[in-house]
Amino acid sequence: MTEARKQTGLPVVSEILDPRDLEYFLEHADIIQIGARNMQNFELLKEVGAYDKPVLLKRGMSATIKEFLLSAEYIMSRGNRNVMLCERGIRTFETQYRNTLDLAAVPTLKEMSHLPVIVDPSHATGNWKLVAPMARAAIAAGADGLLIEVHSNPECALCDGEESLKPSRFQTLMHDLKKVAQAVGREL
Amino acid sequence: MTEARKQTGLPVVSEILDPRDLEYFLEHADIIQIGARNMQNFELLKEVGAYDKPVLLKRGMSATIKEFLLSAEYIMSRGNRNVMLCERGIRTFETQYRNTLDLAAVPTLKEMSHLPVIVDPSHATGNWKLVAPMARAAIAAGADGLLIEVHSNPECALCDGEESLKPSRFQTLMHDLKKVAQAVGREL
Amino acid sequence: MTEARKQTGLPVVSEILDPRDLEYFLEHADIIQIGARNMQNFELLKEVGAYDKPVLLKRGMSATIKEFLLSAEYIMSRGNRNVMLCERGIRTFETQYRNTLDLAAVPTLKEMSHLPVIVDPSHATGNWKLVAPMARAAIAAGADGLLIEVHSNPECALCDGEESLKPSRFQTLMHDLKKVAQAVGREL
Amino acid sequence: MTEARKQTGLPVVSEILDPRDLEYFLEHADIIQIGARNMQNFELLKEVGAYDKPVLLKRGMSATIKEFLLSAEYIMSRGNRNVMLCERGIRTFETQYRNTLDLAAVPTLKEMSHLPVIVDPSHATGNWKLVAPMARAAIAAGADGLLIEVHSNPECALCDGEESLKPSRFQTLMHDLKKVAQAVGREL
Repeated sequence: MTEARKQTGLPVVSEILDPRDLEYFLEHADIIQIGARNMQNFELLKEVGAYDKPVLLKRGMSATIKEFLLSAEYIMSRGNRNVMLCERGIRTFETQYRNTLDLAAVPTLKEMSHLPVIVDPSHATGNWKLVAPMARAAIAAGADGLLIEVHSNPECALCDGEESLKPSRFQTLMHDLKKVAQAVGREL
Repeated sequence: MTEARKQTGLPVVSEILDPRDLEYFLEHADIIQIGARNMQNFELLKEVGAYDKPVLLKRGMSATIKEFLLSAEYIMSRGNRNVMLCERGIRTFETQYRNTLDLAAVPTLKEMSHLPVIVDPSHATGNWKLVAPMARAAIAAGADGLLIEVHSNPECALCDGEESLKPSRFQTLMHDLKKVAQAVGREL
Repeated sequence: MTEARKQTGLPVVSEILDPRDLEYFLEHADIIQIGARNMQNFELLKEVGAYDKPVLLKRGMSATIKEFLLSAEYIMSRGNRNVMLCERGIRTFETQYRNTLDLAAVPTLKEMSHLPVIVDPSHATGNWKLVAPMARAAIAAGADGLLIEVHSNPECALCDGEESLKPSRFQTLMHDLKKVAQAVGREL
Repeated sequence: MTEARKQTGLPVVSEILDPRDLEYFLEHADIIQIGARNMQNFELLKEVGAYDKPVLLKRGMSATIKEFLLSAEYIMSRGNRNVMLCERGIRTFETQYRNTLDLAAVPTLKEMSHLPVIVDPSHATGNWKLVAPMARAAIAAGADGLLIEVHSNPECALCDGEESLKPSRFQTLMHDLKKVAQAVGREL
């Protein structure tokens, strides 16, 4: 991770799975991600709550808005107020896409809390064709940020290839998102 | 209905509930709506399919994308090709809003069919505060139209008051939507 | 239908789809079924409510217990009190079976109303292997009756073959159900 | 825990939340429980998989049957084959009970694996009135065991009071379950 950060100059977000790895993450990651499957892993929430390293908390697959906010509260009550919420799709009966992106969560979470809300259209849909329209919709709904999978060669990606954008499409999307952001009075 | 149309000059959309009322609707309505609860009322679908009066078909509360398209097909197979699809929220575990607006349905329906896709953020959310951000998101996702509840005095509305916009807010929203539409290369 | 009834001596249950067919059903059917897709087809509910012909009302695929009881109320408020409720599975994220049979609905509906509660394990599961265990479970949970698909040659059935029991398996099941009914203080 | 076991002679089941507590559980618990919220906490699954202490694995709130079996596989692939599966209700749109008990999971899991299947009607329903009928139904569906909350004074319980049976009701239920078990050819 440190090497990647040095070469690219980009901050590193990485998902923690085990509380015993926390020290390593504190040293090497810029943002610690808590994945959807661990949103209610309260031991992990307590651990990351004891430091001030920024935390990206993903909504559980079947977590209500209230449960999501309670998990954020769990972290913050330990002192760490640098929490970002990430809507990444919920589980419904619909099988056409991997999950159902719940964009009404964006204005709702922003009204119920002061925390920034990030949207992940890649994991929510599992389909690169849906990433661009859902990214535009997320910004129009008021999202503060996006997580978008990009891969230079999606067909050969080790995982998440189907939902990854090629760099050229990503560039076009960023251009479009700038216009949507301006239209809703935001800046990218 | 005819009176309202005459006074306002607006076209009339009205929901049919009983196949025995069809003649009245053919004469007095400009668009016949099939409600979510009747999306799989196949007798009704067959009836409206036998004419060329435009039909606004709402997605059933727990209808998959495939079932939704099959219901449209049911109408069109009788000859009526003037079908508009309307995403109006699906039923999930989330109780924070009335339904969960499934905006990924917009690009998906547009890819799988040639039909126009309308979004109803008012019924989907049941909460006027969410109508504006969800309307903006729908346009950004590629929707061809919106159904928005407006009431001059929502507190006293006979029904759907909580989700209705006041005319002044509606005007502001229309102004904002124009900008979002332009940002995504559409015109309102 | 009349012929089948005459030859077998069995009462006839048949599903109504169109209010215009009511007269025919009143004459030829012993029980009128309202299917899951029509549970909120209020015109149909009103029609069957105006007579005293027994009605088998199936729960909608995504209907809550409250909505289910309100639909029954719709029928009964017109005068027809011969309503039977039928739990036939609800739509969830689980794709292993056609629907998720909600057996907690049985004691709940019986506590909240005085109406008999029937369970349909065939349509709920869509899989004949699950019919016997779910039928036994339904009786153990307090169900007043069962709907079980039987076909002498399921492989060639025009529809619902996969969920149909062969007559020999049905006979074995009836034998087993008698024992379960006795164990919970009921008689078959 | 050790004290409770000594005084009652009962085996102790306790839920592990943190991999760092494993040693304590190995020494003091007879069965280690993995809760629904941790069903996909793969670090925890790996840890308990490295020993032969029996594991009670609860199904995640929105876990499919396949995901549930994959989590069991995760444990067993490390060598620990003493895994029991526990159906404890899934999350659906229905709000009448805490979760929707999915009893079709019982015969399905038993067909797809060789593992014993336990049912928890207390947590699934969150309502003591539903515990007895759902416990009977679970046994009739083929469950190998039950988890039932009992409290001598439910009104004052620190948690889960609403779903707890009083000892006298529990005794009656056990008597009834014996009869249902016999009716389906099992012994309690």
